[in-house]
Amino acid sequence: MIKSRAAVAFEAGKPLEIVEVDVAPPKAGEVLVRIVATGVCHTDAFTLSGADPEGVFPAILGHEGGGIVEAVGEGVTSVQVGDHVIPLYTAECGQCKSCKSGKTNLCTAVRATQGKGLMPDGTTRFSYKGQPIYHYMGCSTFSEYTVVPEVSLAKIQKDAPLEEVCLLGCGVTTGIGAVLNTAKVEAGSTVAIFGLGGIGLAAIIGARMAGASRIIGVDINPAKFDKARELGATDFVNPKDHDQPIQQVIIDMTDGGVDYSFECVGNVELMRAALECCHRGWGESTIIGVAGAGQEISTRPFQLVTGRVWRGSAFGGVKGRSQLPGYVEKAQKGDIPLSTFITHTMGLEDINKAFELMEEGKSIRSVIHF
Amino acid sequence: MIKSRAAVAFEAGKPLEIVEVDVAPPKAGEVLVRIVATGVCHTDAFTLSGADPEGVFPAILGHEGGGIVEAVGEGVTSVQVGDHVIPLYTAECGQCKSCKSGKTNLCTAVRATQGKGLMPDGTTRFSYKGQPIYHYMGCSTFSEYTVVPEVSLAKIQKDAPLEEVCLLGCGVTTGIGAVLNTAKVEAGSTVAIFGLGGIGLAAIIGARMAGASRIIGVDINPAKFDKARELGATDFVNPKDHDQPIQQVIIDMTDGGVDYSFECVGNVELMRAALECCHRGWGESTIIGVAGAGQEISTRPFQLVTGRVWRGSAFGGVKGRSQLPGYVEKAQKGDIPLSTFITHTMGLEDINKAFELMEEGKSIRSVIHF
Repeated sequence: MIKSRAAVAFEAGKPLEIVEVDVAPPKAGEVLVRIVATGVCHTDAFTLSGADPEGVFPAILGHEGGGIVEAVGEGVTSVQVGDHVIPLYTAECGQCKSCKSGKTNLCTAVRATQGKGLMPDGTTRFSYKGQPIYHYMGCSTFSEYTVVPEVSLAKIQKDAPLEEVCLLGCGVTTGIGAVLNTAKVEAGSTVAIFGLGGIGLAAIIGARMAGASRIIGVDINPAKFDKARELGATDFVNPKDHDQPIQQVIIDMTDGGVDYSFECVGNVELMRAALECCHRGWGESTIIGVAGAGQEISTRPFQLVTGRVWRGSAFGGVKGRSQLPGYVEKAQKGDIPLSTFITHTMGLEDINKAFELMEEGKSIRSVIHF
Repeated sequence: MIKSRAAVAFEAGKPLEIVEVDVAPPKAGEVLVRIVATGVCHTDAFTLSGADPEGVFPAILGHEGGGIVEAVGEGVTSVQVGDHVIPLYTAECGQCKSCKSGKTNLCTAVRATQGKGLMPDGTTRFSYKGQPIYHYMGCSTFSEYTVVPEVSLAKIQKDAPLEEVCLLGCGVTTGIGAVLNTAKVEAGSTVAIFGLGGIGLAAIIGARMAGASRIIGVDINPAKFDKARELGATDFVNPKDHDQPIQQVIIDMTDGGVDYSFECVGNVELMRAALECCHRGWGESTIIGVAGAGQEISTRPFQLVTGRVWRGSAFGGVKGRSQLPGYVEKAQKGDIPLSTFITHTMGLEDINKAFELMEEGKSIRSVIHF
């Protein structure tokens, strides 16, 4: 049992509390990781708000971290003490039906227990004053020390700055991967990106990597346009500037619609607009944003019968253990400008400030340094 | 001007009337076709009912015909008198943005006027007692003689029986093409087909051609299961036999869902079930059926974010002029058993009987012989 500084979500809707929790040693197939840095993502805020039907409390949130292996449990062979790692909320076991299919990154190895805030053996490694604290998304990176299943760790290059590449644990990889892996955007395509937060900006980077000829950024906050332009967006649409539905505006400015669109907000009306602004015959829309519990998307089936395709992407379709090292390499080469995403850095004691900045739309990513 | 026996839809919701209409000669880029046989399809009944918002009256319906070129207008070079042809409601001009894209069969060359029941020059070639009669879907095959744009004619083999291959003008090609062209089902896949009418049966043929390992037919009328089995379906589900939602029944019988599903009815609730019975991570659902005006499809976006894909298909994604001769060849080789679809044949004078049989669920296809 070791002591660890952690930001604990004791209750939904309340600020996190910085306390010293107890962390049990890793069991078989588990790894103890010392987190060096972690991003704060909208999904953390969504769960903290109480709106996430899977949310359990008390829990240690955080799922966008970078760290160093501190100890390994029995039978762990793929990482060793001192390795640099990124915890994965989408594991990659290589053995389950999904992994073997070669068609999806949605490994099911630890899914059932992960969804309940538990390790695969059905227990938790965190406790506070003797009471169990739940895990979160298989990561719990808002703790100096965390325990993660071996299959949920991507081993990465040691010379990559963990304070930056931690962002590849969620948002940046999700946006880029949705463009490159899920939609497979081709050179010369026209692309519309709905929502210019972290994931939308990452999708712009992906579209530029793919060689898109036109990248239309859509957001109701024009303050976000500058950074989007810097990353490669070529056109901007603020729905507030138009009386017409936004899908019609985009159809008109693209001679019939875009080849690919991406919804990066989690708003079901925007998901519809993103589908309907695609070109008849071949346009494909990818949902990346996570909608509130119980919300539904709708459209006329005619939209699909006339050739549009509606799909979605989780973690950018990226298989974490196989593919994250490649993303780290791209970041090191400068192809993924991670520092552009980091608008604030702070210590763990200020983590509630990071949530405030995010909710006020004042940050892209705050990175917490331990 | 020639005289032609035709079944005219003078008014929505009324039986067709067999009368002698006047047919004007083909103008530039148009072709006069003598129809030898035509199928009667649900879409004809949908328009006749008055539910089709694009329906115009009086009109000559019918869009599943086979015929012989009788005369060509100025500048027509791709067909000549005596050629055997299938009229296409989805033209293929080879010149528009859609045709040039290589990504879709949804040619736009004659779309605007076709939707209004007119020839490309904005007029009609049919009249009765001096009053204009509208065209339908660019085909109007319920007339002994019809005029069709050159780009809306597939020239086919002369030794193919027009009384059978006329069915390749719509339903059979739509079902097979959706499986092979749109969804691109691979060998070994599991497939669910919702609705075992003509299109559903054709989709079964397509799935068998693709080498699907399991083909699940879904229909509330078990009388349809025998023919489906004969064509290659391996499993059957009657939603009336189950208390659980049909998507759950299929998920349970397939260890997590099918690889591909097809909705062949036009029922938006069934479209949702067809999507949701697909396997997490990779299952793809294709909408073939045409829903009523204003109806919408819905689902939770989570269904897409966890890897399902929702698409649609019109005329099976088939480019008529390029690809229909290949379908005719397959039919001649016996790979597409067209005679299995033809449950009734009759003369034009009995065409209202064909509509009744179809609405009572007693026919797959009635073929009208002129």
